[in-house]
Amino acid sequence: MSRFLSKKHAGLAPYVPGEQPQSGRYIKLNTNESPFDVPPAVVEAARGAAEKLRLYPDPDCRELTAALAESMGVGPDQIVPANGSDEVLDFAFLAFCDGGRPALFPDVTYGFYRVFAAVNGVPYREIPLRPDFSVAVEDYAGLAGTVFLANPNAPTGLALPAERIRALLDQDRDRVVVVDEAYVDFGGESAAALIPEYDNLLVTRTFSKSRSMAGARLGYAAGSAALIADLNAIRFSVNPYNLDRMTLAAGAAMLKCEETVRANCRAVAAQREKTAAELAAMGFELTDSRANFLFARYPGADGETLYRALKDRGILVRHFSAPRTKDFVRITVGSPEDMRALTGALAEILEGCACVPQK
Amino acid sequence: MSRFLSKKHAGLAPYVPGEQPQSGRYIKLNTNESPFDVPPAVVEAARGAAEKLRLYPDPDCRELTAALAESMGVGPDQIVPANGSDEVLDFAFLAFCDGGRPALFPDVTYGFYRVFAAVNGVPYREIPLRPDFSVAVEDYAGLAGTVFLANPNAPTGLALPAERIRALLDQDRDRVVVVDEAYVDFGGESAAALIPEYDNLLVTRTFSKSRSMAGARLGYAAGSAALIADLNAIRFSVNPYNLDRMTLAAGAAMLKCEETVRANCRAVAAQREKTAAELAAMGFELTDSRANFLFARYPGADGETLYRALKDRGILVRHFSAPRTKDFVRITVGSPEDMRALTGALAEILEGCACVPQK
Repeated sequence: MSRFLSKKHAGLAPYVPGEQPQSGRYIKLNTNESPFDVPPAVVEAARGAAEKLRLYPDPDCRELTAALAESMGVGPDQIVPANGSDEVLDFAFLAFCDGGRPALFPDVTYGFYRVFAAVNGVPYREIPLRPDFSVAVEDYAGLAGTVFLANPNAPTGLALPAERIRALLDQDRDRVVVVDEAYVDFGGESAAALIPEYDNLLVTRTFSKSRSMAGARLGYAAGSAALIADLNAIRFSVNPYNLDRMTLAAGAAMLKCEETVRANCRAVAAQREKTAAELAAMGFELTDSRANFLFARYPGADGETLYRALKDRGILVRHFSAPRTKDFVRITVGSPEDMRALTGALAEILEGCACVPQK
Repeated sequence: MSRFLSKKHAGLAPYVPGEQPQSGRYIKLNTNESPFDVPPAVVEAARGAAEKLRLYPDPDCRELTAALAESMGVGPDQIVPANGSDEVLDFAFLAFCDGGRPALFPDVTYGFYRVFAAVNGVPYREIPLRPDFSVAVEDYAGLAGTVFLANPNAPTGLALPAERIRALLDQDRDRVVVVDEAYVDFGGESAAALIPEYDNLLVTRTFSKSRSMAGARLGYAAGSAALIADLNAIRFSVNPYNLDRMTLAAGAAMLKCEETVRANCRAVAAQREKTAAELAAMGFELTDSRANFLFARYPGADGETLYRALKDRGILVRHFSAPRTKDFVRITVGSPEDMRALTGALAEILEGCACVPQK
């Protein structure tokens, strides 16, 4: 922090993304990417768009927005596209929170929420998950603010049924509830069907997980036209051309490959259950993840130890430092080959590594 | 604005970008795009990157940042890349302005500055340009705040020599000066050479103009390592993956085509002088633009009238509503063919259109 930085940012602790080694040396199971490449039609769409780079993209993103609206069963004025769902979450903190309206979110959730609150000068309150890591929506009753709920939650993978989101929305129709559905396609239940009934509901989605496009930076929010108009007012006040031509074209092409996406999600979910069973058989304790990752601990070993032992064996996973999560690792569900490498490495660690209690 | 939007944004007046019709029906001389397509190597780089979309991009943008640093003659820790220069300008308002440190910029300049100030809750003060539209840096002496200066300025096209930027920097070494060099490659003098001497200097650049990549959304800032560290703290608090793989690859490929870029800029500058002379011969009054656009008025006709008459003839230009600029149109310097269409349409308007005073 230099002498030039505004004092309001003095305590800023930026988000630390998962390691992104560009060498290809590691099996990457640390940032919940898809094991499936995008279809060739997506590559071709991006290439075609690259030929027109001299011209600005459409700031209204009409083609993509129309396709997203159709996929979500809402109107085009109910979608705002963004440079990754992180961007639209940041817009939501900027638009719907302030000194009198704190952000409310679980104590164990996507670590970026508290960073968004800080950079936007917004107070926040963490609502503890129950001891089993579940979200109890009753805990939000009577609390003023704007709720941010990842569903399925990260890093736990636990999902709430849409009926619980409805209960949360009903607690206060004047309180905005943002449901971050980054991982919903792997086995969660979307709240999107509630959008026509609740003008205080905003659902955010990303193309980074089930749609294999983490490298394209594409996310969006769906909600009432009123909420979306507010977010567009922010978007056009910050970066109206937030999406480039290649990402817009790739996204629109990907939306035409929904059968592939569904098949990919089924494969990931099946692999998740298989690997979860294998880890449980080894003695790991796991949550019932509905996402494309596992949240697992081995009794007596902390997460960082497992992370290091796996990294030594060429596998990257994610670990945490907070008291409630430091025993855990979060492991992306990768390809069958990557999962075999994972279980092999873990077996080796459990058998012969001084860093964990031996069987 | 919905009942959910924070009251702090009640007065928000988002930026209105130039029209971006996607139909191809118009000759677009309204958003200062390049008439030159990107080289095939850039398209190929984007296509290659699209094949790896399943993986997140490098949040540190190491390859691109190293190439940019080399091109600017600074270290890699003195560059922050962004999703268009608009994004890095927004970061600068967020980082370096606050209630006690207003933004300072000319009354006639890039219209987004006052929007950035508003959305970030920052007061601003507009310093009037001199009657001839020139920036007099003496007018900033003794003013506390953070200076934002487009050089060449938009929409006037007038440029300050680097020596005047030095004088501005010397006025207060504890005041940040942001020099927005979006148009510098067409005939301005960059302040980048001053970066080693002034830790309060930030220079922003874009790939949208001279580098023919408006559709890719790529900009950056160069400055002291201290300023860049602050901007990265903001970037990693807002959107660490702000640049996608395709844009990163296309940008790095474009940086290897500097001879093409220089030739394109020479062609645009030559065309600018030719068209300026033609317009002057028709009776237009023009500023001495060093950018890739002309800023022109026809005595007795206001800018909106000319804009409409040109739009009726299939040509888009930009007009303004502020008292000092409403008589003017801003016309992008396009291809020779587009410029012939422009001068032909203007001749037609001046000869036979009831909307302007006839010769």
